[in-house]
Amino acid sequence: MNSQLTIVKVGGKIIEEPDSLNTLLKDFSRIAGYKMLIHGGGRMATELAEKLGVESKMADGRRITDEKTLKIVTMVYAGLVNKEIVVQLQASGVDAVGLTGADMNLIASLKRPVKEIDYGFVGDIKTVNSRVLSDLLSQGFVPVLAPLTHDGNGNLLNTNADSIAAETAAALAYDFNVRLIYCFEKNGVLRNENDEKSVIPTLDRELYQQYKSEGVIKDGMIPKLDNAFRARAAGVQEIVITSAAGLNIGGGTYIR
Amino acid sequence: MNSQLTIVKVGGKIIEEPDSLNTLLKDFSRIAGYKMLIHGGGRMATELAEKLGVESKMADGRRITDEKTLKIVTMVYAGLVNKEIVVQLQASGVDAVGLTGADMNLIASLKRPVKEIDYGFVGDIKTVNSRVLSDLLSQGFVPVLAPLTHDGNGNLLNTNADSIAAETAAALAYDFNVRLIYCFEKNGVLRNENDEKSVIPTLDRELYQQYKSEGVIKDGMIPKLDNAFRARAAGVQEIVITSAAGLNIGGGTYIR
Repeated sequence: MNSQLTIVKVGGKIIEEPDSLNTLLKDFSRIAGYKMLIHGGGRMATELAEKLGVESKMADGRRITDEKTLKIVTMVYAGLVNKEIVVQLQASGVDAVGLTGADMNLIASLKRPVKEIDYGFVGDIKTVNSRVLSDLLSQGFVPVLAPLTHDGNGNLLNTNADSIAAETAAALAYDFNVRLIYCFEKNGVLRNENDEKSVIPTLDRELYQQYKSEGVIKDGMIPKLDNAFRARAAGVQEIVITSAAGLNIGGGTYIR
Repeated sequence: MNSQLTIVKVGGKIIEEPDSLNTLLKDFSRIAGYKMLIHGGGRMATELAEKLGVESKMADGRRITDEKTLKIVTMVYAGLVNKEIVVQLQASGVDAVGLTGADMNLIASLKRPVKEIDYGFVGDIKTVNSRVLSDLLSQGFVPVLAPLTHDGNGNLLNTNADSIAAETAAALAYDFNVRLIYCFEKNGVLRNENDEKSVIPTLDRELYQQYKSEGVIKDGMIPKLDNAFRARAAGVQEIVITSAAGLNIGGGTYIR
């Protein structure tokens, strides 16, 4: 039987507020077995861009990444956020290693082709180097991945952290029994977005289609759930969408 | 016989100018055998600090690192500079991995005690995890180290890149036949700082003391050479102080 691997994706306010990040990392450090963390860092990049007078442009919730913006997200994601997580985990006895997809050629991606929108230096994942990740894990390291990949031609590419979580989970599902946990600002996928108690406990493809057609599930939840169902189809054993506290107390929406 | 390991330290203008960095990385990618790169990034941090309205304070050529400055150097060193180097090396077929001393617990340091000057979040190296570096090298990876270490209690510490180069070279001298090359803005240690042709070809401790007492060697060269002699005493086989071009064409000052 394969060993258990827990992959936690964390983003949004959890990353931005030192106290909530600290609590999450403490909970993460207590997870037994192999583990890996993938983080975003969105609004902190927006804040730095503002201070530097670089305009943040978004399209469908994705950041349009020109050359200046790429430098900003590289500083914030690979520098500030990634190393803050690594140094805190090390202090909790977790042998963390902070990496982008360029390091060790972990994640190669394709610059998104220009159609209606030119997203700039944004990458869609092509391959995940699961062998190297698997080696790091079996050597006792805990990879902490920043949402940047590369094209192999000398360009870093800004890459959605949910997609990195889904694709790495899928790639590692051959070697491990993978549990993928998306921690975000709500308690799970909600039936009513204003009621934190309306968590949908389990969601399969059929119910997902139904909720989408009814407009119960919409906006930013759709790409997140598409990623989750793709990982599920690729053999990821358990997928949960939950709050930061969910890492400790359980709960959230299970993807079947 | 131990395998050859080349450690290149690069800083100053070489890092700041895209063309010179590019040339250096191309030369570095052609070095045969095991290799490792250690970089600085000083003035780029000063520039970002200026843009963000954070005052840069220096004492004896070292940056005083308060909390805001630590965030800036983390963004610039571990983010911008480190990942630019990694992504370019990957494009040249070098399987680079960008790391700080916090990653994999590679370099633990002590926050410098406050005497006449409070340097803030500045670290003096305590231990180098040579086993992990050695494993990375033997697995075919090329470590690219940013000048940040950690105290094991959750703090990153700004650490002089020359010292990181000397200490890692010394720690790896048990497992490898180490060649340490400091690339900087001049052709080597100069007899006359205004004459690039006045390179001192070899320097032993005796001659170093003599040149120091005569005022021929002074200022920023002194900590650089102290580091180099310390590494030499610790068993590093070959130490050269040279220009970026020296990596390709040879020359420079050899430390005996």
